[in-house]
Amino acid sequence: MSTYTSLDHLKFLLKEVHPIEPLFALSRFSHLNWEQSWMVVESAKLLADRDMAPYFKEMDRQPAAYDGKGGVRTHPQFITIIREAAEQGWIRGAAKFEHGGLQLPMMVYNAGQHVFQAANNNCGYFGLTAGAAGLITSFGNEQQIKTFVPAMFDGRWQGTMALTEPQAGSSLSDVATSATPVGNGMYKIKGQKIFISGGQHDACENFIHLTLGRIEGAPPGVKGISLFIIPKFWPAEDGTLHDNDVFCAGDFQKMGQRGYCTTHLVFGDNDGCKGWLVGDAHKGLAYMFQMMNESRIAVGLAAASIAMAAYQASLQYALERPQGRLASEKDPLKLPTMIINHPDVQRMLLTQKAIVEGALSLIMESSRLSDLANALVGTEKQKHWLLLEILTPIVKTYSAEQGSRSAALAIQTFGGYGFTTDFPVEQLYRDLKIMSIYEGTTGIQSIDLLGRKVIMEKGQALTELIAVMKETISKADVHEPLKPYAKALASEIVQLGAVLEHLKKFAGTGDLDRFLADASIFMEMMSGQVIAWQWLKQAVIAHTRLQASDFTLQSKEFYEGKVHTMKFFFRYELPHAQACAKTMLDPEYLTGLKKKEILA
Amino acid sequence: MSTYTSLDHLKFLLKEVHPIEPLFALSRFSHLNWEQSWMVVESAKLLADRDMAPYFKEMDRQPAAYDGKGGVRTHPQFITIIREAAEQGWIRGAAKFEHGGLQLPMMVYNAGQHVFQAANNNCGYFGLTAGAAGLITSFGNEQQIKTFVPAMFDGRWQGTMALTEPQAGSSLSDVATSATPVGNGMYKIKGQKIFISGGQHDACENFIHLTLGRIEGAPPGVKGISLFIIPKFWPAEDGTLHDNDVFCAGDFQKMGQRGYCTTHLVFGDNDGCKGWLVGDAHKGLAYMFQMMNESRIAVGLAAASIAMAAYQASLQYALERPQGRLASEKDPLKLPTMIINHPDVQRMLLTQKAIVEGALSLIMESSRLSDLANALVGTEKQKHWLLLEILTPIVKTYSAEQGSRSAALAIQTFGGYGFTTDFPVEQLYRDLKIMSIYEGTTGIQSIDLLGRKVIMEKGQALTELIAVMKETISKADVHEPLKPYAKALASEIVQLGAVLEHLKKFAGTGDLDRFLADASIFMEMMSGQVIAWQWLKQAVIAHTRLQASDFTLQSKEFYEGKVHTMKFFFRYELPHAQACAKTMLDPEYLTGLKKKEILA
Repeated sequence: MSTYTSLDHLKFLLKEVHPIEPLFALSRFSHLNWEQSWMVVESAKLLADRDMAPYFKEMDRQPAAYDGKGGVRTHPQFITIIREAAEQGWIRGAAKFEHGGLQLPMMVYNAGQHVFQAANNNCGYFGLTAGAAGLITSFGNEQQIKTFVPAMFDGRWQGTMALTEPQAGSSLSDVATSATPVGNGMYKIKGQKIFISGGQHDACENFIHLTLGRIEGAPPGVKGISLFIIPKFWPAEDGTLHDNDVFCAGDFQKMGQRGYCTTHLVFGDNDGCKGWLVGDAHKGLAYMFQMMNESRIAVGLAAASIAMAAYQASLQYALERPQGRLASEKDPLKLPTMIINHPDVQRMLLTQKAIVEGALSLIMESSRLSDLANALVGTEKQKHWLLLEILTPIVKTYSAEQGSRSAALAIQTFGGYGFTTDFPVEQLYRDLKIMSIYEGTTGIQSIDLLGRKVIMEKGQALTELIAVMKETISKADVHEPLKPYAKALASEIVQLGAVLEHLKKFAGTGDLDRFLADASIFMEMMSGQVIAWQWLKQAVIAHTRLQASDFTLQSKEFYEGKVHTMKFFFRYELPHAQACAKTMLDPEYLTGLKKKEILA
Repeated sequence: MSTYTSLDHLKFLLKEVHPIEPLFALSRFSHLNWEQSWMVVESAKLLADRDMAPYFKEMDRQPAAYDGKGGVRTHPQFITIIREAAEQGWIRGAAKFEHGGLQLPMMVYNAGQHVFQAANNNCGYFGLTAGAAGLITSFGNEQQIKTFVPAMFDGRWQGTMALTEPQAGSSLSDVATSATPVGNGMYKIKGQKIFISGGQHDACENFIHLTLGRIEGAPPGVKGISLFIIPKFWPAEDGTLHDNDVFCAGDFQKMGQRGYCTTHLVFGDNDGCKGWLVGDAHKGLAYMFQMMNESRIAVGLAAASIAMAAYQASLQYALERPQGRLASEKDPLKLPTMIINHPDVQRMLLTQKAIVEGALSLIMESSRLSDLANALVGTEKQKHWLLLEILTPIVKTYSAEQGSRSAALAIQTFGGYGFTTDFPVEQLYRDLKIMSIYEGTTGIQSIDLLGRKVIMEKGQALTELIAVMKETISKADVHEPLKPYAKALASEIVQLGAVLEHLKKFAGTGDLDRFLADASIFMEMMSGQVIAWQWLKQAVIAHTRLQASDFTLQSKEFYEGKVHTMKFFFRYELPHAQACAKTMLDPEYLTGLKKKEILA
C-alpha cells in the first residue's frame, strides 16, 4: 500500500482541533514542543513505510502457525519490527521518566500507533508489551518493575494480557485459573487462557503474561480476582532464563489479522508454574482495567486506522480508474470518466471519510483527555478522567462497527477487484472484524456505556460530556452557515436526555434486564451523536480558517473538505441516531424474545 | 454444518404466505401437486446434506487455483455435485418440457437452490449452467439448442455468462470484444473477459460462454452489443470436441467463495476463436437481461441463504454455550446461563431472523411472480412481470447488504470463536461480501431501481407494487393487534411517495446526476419498506392461525415467532427507512462532493 493514511488530517487534529501545544505548559510534558512531537509522528511514518507496510500482505499469506510442540512460527520481519520500534521508543514512549520512559503524551503515542496500525495491523506486539509494562509500573512493586520492565521496554520480552478462559469467555466473574500461595508473594498457578495475543512467537525470547486468577479461598465473582505476573521463563540473577511450565497449546487460525498470533496457553500442567502477585490480592480486575481501558482505546484506534487504510486505497483507486459515464452523459463515444466523478462513488468515499476522520478525531479527543487526566490533579483531573471513562466504550465501538461498514464501502468502490486478493481492501475488511470483539464485544461495551458510564458518579460523566458538547455548539452558533448544525446537535442532546429518562424508568423499578436490553441501540445512537459533535468541532475550526483566509497550516480545499464532510455526516449519518432513539422510545414495550419463538 | 436452514420456514412460505398450490391450476404447472413439489425440496436437502455441506470448509481451504497453463484446479467433489444435481434435474428443472426440462415452478427451483446455497455456496456451477442454457432455449435457434443444451442439462458442459471486460467493468456500454462475420451466423471473436464464474474447472468437459461482443461496424454503446455462444470446444457431428482458441489466462484469488472459480478468459489470441450469434445482431443486451434478471434473484437468494446458514449456526451456538449471568442475577455462584438468555444475544438473533426470513419471503414472492408471469398471458402476465421487475433489484440488494450485516451479527454471537476458522461463520461472512458486487453492484442496482424501475411504463410497476402492499395492509387492518403495523406501513407508502416527488423534481429539470445521486439511499429506504410489507404479510397468516388455534401446519410457537419478529422488524429496522427518507428530503440540497474537497 503506497498510501494508507493522511498525515495532514493527523496534523489538523493535533495542532488545531485538539491542540496539543497547551500540554507542553504542564510539567509532565514540559520537556517537549510541537516540532519534536511532530517529528516523532513523522519518524513513525518512516518506520511504518520501511518495515511494516511492505509486509502487510505477506503476513496474511504466511499466517502465524502452531508448530505442534509449543512454538508458534511467525513472520521473520517481526524481529526487525519489534527491535526498531523499541529502539525508536515505541514501547517505553508513554511511560514516565522514573520508569525509563519518554513521558510522551498519549496524543503523540497514539498518532504513531495510528500510522503503524494503518500500515500493517499485524504489528501489535510492541504496543501490547507497552500496555503490559505499564500495568507493572502502575501497580507492581520495585522488584517486579526491575525484573521485567527493562527487557520489555527493549522489546526482548513480550508482554501479554491473559484474561479469557475457555469456559468463561467475556464473563470474567467466572475466571477459574487457580493460585496457591507458596510464600514471598509467589503463587503456584494452574489454569488455561485462550485468545492470548502475542502469547508465543518467534520474535521475543521471553513472554510476560499479566494474568487474572483466583487465590484459593477467594470470594466468588469479580471480587475474588487477582493479578499475577507469569513469565514463560523466570530470569535468574545471572540473567539466565528458567522454564516456568507455561505451555502454548495452540494458535487459533482466524479470518483476519492472520500474521498476529492468538494463542492458547496452559499454566502449570506439570505443577511447575509460579506467578507473582501484583499489588493486593483480589484487586486484580481493578488493576487490569487500567490496561483494558487503554486497550479499548487502542482497539478503537486500530479499527479506525484499518478503515483509514481502506479509505485511502479506495480513494486512490477511484482517482485512477476510468469507468462509465455520468447519467447526464448520453454519448457512448465520450471517453469513460474516472469513477470518482460518479455521485454514488462520491457518496461511498464521503461516508468513509466521515467515519474514519470522525473516529480519529474522537480518538485524539480521548488521548488528550488521558494526557490531561494524567498531568493534572484534583477536580480538573477528575473531570478529564470522567470524560475519558464515558468516551472509551464509544471510541472502541464506533470505530469497530462503523469502521467495518466503511471498509465494506471501500470494497464496493473497487467493485469486483475489491473482492480479490490483488488489492488490500479485502484483507483490511477481514482484519477489521475482530475489533468489535477484542477487549469486550460491542454488546459488553454497550452495557458498560449505558449500565455503568452514563450513570457513574451520579451521572457526572454524562453531565461533563454534555457540557463540552454544548461548548462546541456555542462556538458553532456564532457562524451563520454553521447555525443549523449547532441547532441539530443541540436537539440531539435533548433526544439523548429523553431516551435516558425513558430507559431509567426500568432501572428505577429494578428491571435491570429491560434497562440494558437495548444497550447496543443506545450505543449506536450515542456514538452517532458524539461523532456529530466531533465533526462540528472540526467544522468550527475549518470555517474559522476559511473566513479568515488563513491557510498557513492547511489549504483552502482541505478546510472546505472538513466543512463539507461535517454537513454530509449530519445529513446522511445522524438521522440514523434518531432512528435508534425512535426504537428505544417506542411506547409499546418489547417484552423481549421468547426463546421458543425464535426456535420455532 | 449440521443445521443451515429451516425447512419449516420454507414450507410456511410456499404453503401459506405465497401459496404455491394455485399455480398447479395453471396449465404450465398442472403436472405437479403439493406433495411432489415438497418432495423435490426435500430431495434437495438430502443432496445438500450428503454431497455439499460436508465440503464447505474444505473447498475454502483448497481454493480453485490456476495451474499456469490454462487449467483451473478445483475440488474433486464438484464432479459428484454437478453429476448428482444434473441427475436430480437441478439444471433442467425450470426449463420447459419442449426443451427437455421439468417445467418446475421457480418457487420450487429456488427453494432447492436456497438449500444448496445455504449448505455450501461454492456449488453454483450447475445453477449457472441452468441460466446459460435458459438463455439459449429462449433466444437461440433450433440448431443452437440441439448443439448445446442437452450436454448442459446433463451437467457435462458448463455454461457461463461472459460480460465484464477489464477496461469496462460495470459499464457494458464499453464492451469491446470484437466479432467479425465469417458467414452462417458465425463470427471470428477477439477479446478478453474477466470475473467469469465457472469459466474453467475440472468438473466439466466443455465450457459454453454466453458472451457479449460487438460486431464490426455496430453502433456505439449498448445499442451495438450482440450475444454469442462461444464454446471452449466445438462439437463435431461425431461428438468429438475441437479447440476453439478460448484460453483461461488466470483465476482470481478472492476473500470468499474460494472454492468457486473466477476466471480470466481470452478469446481468439491465435485468431482461431469462433462465436455463434444468438438471435438478432445488436440485441444482445436485451437477451442477456433475461439471464441477468434471473441471476440477480439468484444472487439475492444466495446472499439470503448464506446469511441463513450463519443465523442457524449462531442460533445453535447460543443455545449450547453457557456464559455469564443476566444483569438482574447478582449471585456469582449461580451457574452461568446459556447465552441465548442474554437480551443482547436475543437482539442479535432476532435481527438476523428478521433479515434472513424477510429476505427469503421476498424471494419467494418474486419467484411466484416469475411463475405467474411465465404461466399467464396478456394484462395479467404484464402485471406480474412489472412487479417482478421492480422487486428484482431490491431482492438482490437487500439480501446482499443486510445479509452481510446479519452475518456480522452471527460472528458477534460467537464472540472470539466466531472470528476463528473453527466455526463456519467467518467463512460465511467472507463469502457473502461478493453478493453486493455480482451481477451489478449495489450502486448499479440502486440506479436501476430509481432511474428505471420506479419510472418504467409511466410508473406502472410502482403503482402495482403499492396496490399489492395496500392489499396486505387491508388484510392486517381487520386484526386489532396488527392495526398499528398496518398503519405504520401505510405511512411508509406515503413517505415513499413524498421522497419520489421530491427527487423527480430534479429529473424534471433534466438534472439526472442529482436525481440519481442518492439512489443507494433510496434503495435502502425502499427495501426496508418492502421487507416490512413481507413481514406484515407473514404476520397476517400467523395471526390468523393463532386466532383460529389452527396448528395443523406449524406449531403455536412458530406462528408466535413470526408475529413477534414482524413487530421487531417494525420497531428496530423500519425507523432506519425513515432516516433515509429524512436524508433525501433534506431541503438543503447537497451539491455533491467536490473532488478537491475529498482529496484535501
